[in-house]
Amino acid sequence: MNRRVTIADIAAAAGVSKGAVSYALNGRPGVSEATRKKILAIAAEMGFVPNRAARSLSVSSAQAVGIALRRSARTLGIEPYFMELISGIEATLSAGSFGLTLQIVDTVEEELEVYRRWWAERRVDGVLLCDVGTADRRLDFMADLGLPAVAVGGPVEGARLPAVWHDDAEPCREILEYLHALGHRRIARVAGFAHLLHTEIRDNAYAETAADLGLESMETFHSDYTGEQGARITRRLLSSAGRPTAIIYDNDVTAVAGLGVAHELGIGVPNGLSIVAWDDSPLCRLTHPALTSLTRDISAYGSQCAEALLTVIGAEPGADRAFSVQCRPAQLSPRASTGPAKP
Amino acid sequence: MNRRVTIADIAAAAGVSKGAVSYALNGRPGVSEATRKKILAIAAEMGFVPNRAARSLSVSSAQAVGIALRRSARTLGIEPYFMELISGIEATLSAGSFGLTLQIVDTVEEELEVYRRWWAERRVDGVLLCDVGTADRRLDFMADLGLPAVAVGGPVEGARLPAVWHDDAEPCREILEYLHALGHRRIARVAGFAHLLHTEIRDNAYAETAADLGLESMETFHSDYTGEQGARITRRLLSSAGRPTAIIYDNDVTAVAGLGVAHELGIGVPNGLSIVAWDDSPLCRLTHPALTSLTRDISAYGSQCAEALLTVIGAEPGADRAFSVQCRPAQLSPRASTGPAKP
Repeated sequence: MNRRVTIADIAAAAGVSKGAVSYALNGRPGVSEATRKKILAIAAEMGFVPNRAARSLSVSSAQAVGIALRRSARTLGIEPYFMELISGIEATLSAGSFGLTLQIVDTVEEELEVYRRWWAERRVDGVLLCDVGTADRRLDFMADLGLPAVAVGGPVEGARLPAVWHDDAEPCREILEYLHALGHRRIARVAGFAHLLHTEIRDNAYAETAADLGLESMETFHSDYTGEQGARITRRLLSSAGRPTAIIYDNDVTAVAGLGVAHELGIGVPNGLSIVAWDDSPLCRLTHPALTSLTRDISAYGSQCAEALLTVIGAEPGADRAFSVQCRPAQLSPRASTGPAKP
Repeated sequence: MNRRVTIADIAAAAGVSKGAVSYALNGRPGVSEATRKKILAIAAEMGFVPNRAARSLSVSSAQAVGIALRRSARTLGIEPYFMELISGIEATLSAGSFGLTLQIVDTVEEELEVYRRWWAERRVDGVLLCDVGTADRRLDFMADLGLPAVAVGGPVEGARLPAVWHDDAEPCREILEYLHALGHRRIARVAGFAHLLHTEIRDNAYAETAADLGLESMETFHSDYTGEQGARITRRLLSSAGRPTAIIYDNDVTAVAGLGVAHELGIGVPNGLSIVAWDDSPLCRLTHPALTSLTRDISAYGSQCAEALLTVIGAEPGADRAFSVQCRPAQLSPRASTGPAKP
């Protein structure tokens, strides 16, 4: 099979610059009508195929960034995190005249297929990889595919892609030391998906700090981030003998559900139970008592991710793509849901 | 200025079918190599401009649907509604191999500019118009622009666009009759944006039904759907003399905030106050007590909107575009937040 005719081939044959060919093929001003006709005729003669993939490759960009989210509609709908992240990404993309293409997928295979198709058809110039996992096959896949990509999360060891991340370990230490100072010795945690990188980082940080502080117990229960699982785990924890005096939740939704269960069981917050939520969102301030939370600017984080991706998209081929951007870690915002442990 | 050369012109000049021209221009199988070269040469000769806009118009589609949301990041992040709607839209689009392009805008002018640009560059084949207003200039704008569009909401009188909607008036009557049967005579409502069509429809339905039932009071307060405004309005209502015995909220977020304020003021729910929320989401089941809500399948609604849009996109030019799809209205799901009015 013949190789595909490029803009450079046409430029050489027509004795004009690649820019002139690009102008002519795109119908933009910058070449005379006579030149344009000549270039188009030569392009046709040479068998130039003006399909979208070839055109985008050689002439222009898709001016779009893609996100494929592997989450159920149910989870997406209720978690403020994604819409906040997307609104930050959007703000940066709009400023650079880039669009955002969104696709919800069921499996990782389907997700990889979406990337392959997007890239083959040049529907996007790059993608953001959300929900970075502990052993994430997408990272090598993307590097091999050549589609510019940025991991939203990290740090990713030995990665061939840039990652935009913040330290999850330090805030875990901050929470446990704070609860320890309030006298809590039996602490439980309702965590997110076990396969996510940041869940594992937190798992390890809590275990280490609990050992350092000599806590009586520090148990972790993984969930799918939904209120249902948050409520069920909390109900079991609070119904058990030697129940925890404080529970830490890995997202806002499970924390709000946990507060609901405490109300249901007649356990006062913070008198009978202290509650800490991650990802401070307006949800955490809607409840009574308002929830002590780990606050971070998710919208700003989204903007930083989009900036990194636009940098990669605009970089020369061969440029170092495996840079790492560390953002501000989450900060503890103490509110009314935490207080001294009662014996 | 000359009119743009079309596929039909090239087909006539080359003595082939429009399909053959399309195959040739897109580099697809279906024509011989000799015919392809001939067609491409004729196209070039006639000054055919194979830019994205022209190509999409005459040959292929962008295979994408756009949504421009005029909501703040803060509102978007916390409202489950939009992500549920988008997940339903996505499911239908994916099945039809269409992508979804999302843009967040600040003003209606910016929104119209986005549609103009998307259509000029054929970045989308059609758009879904969310947050339909009472006097919505987007409806005529879209019809004039010619970009296929479907209004997500209605009914829209005299519209030149299809609308996918459900009756908002009947559920209002159902709620008020239910609260009236429970003995409530002083009822208040925390509504959404006054300029939205469905808010106005509800405003009128509540006012009429309240008059029919002879309620003592039925006051409405408009909000921006945020928990902050929901909490502030609730606090004022519950602090006033002759406070309402039941409050209806137009979304889940303001209802959860209202419940928080009742807890804060030591007013029991439902003993001292009954609460009804619209748009049942997992949020309404996280709280204690769980909230009585108006339930509708938002994801299915999103799918129906996407289906209507794909129908419009696939329709022949000149086909009737102003059809209307009426979906199932919301149903009352009574839970623990409503009970008999105490004197």
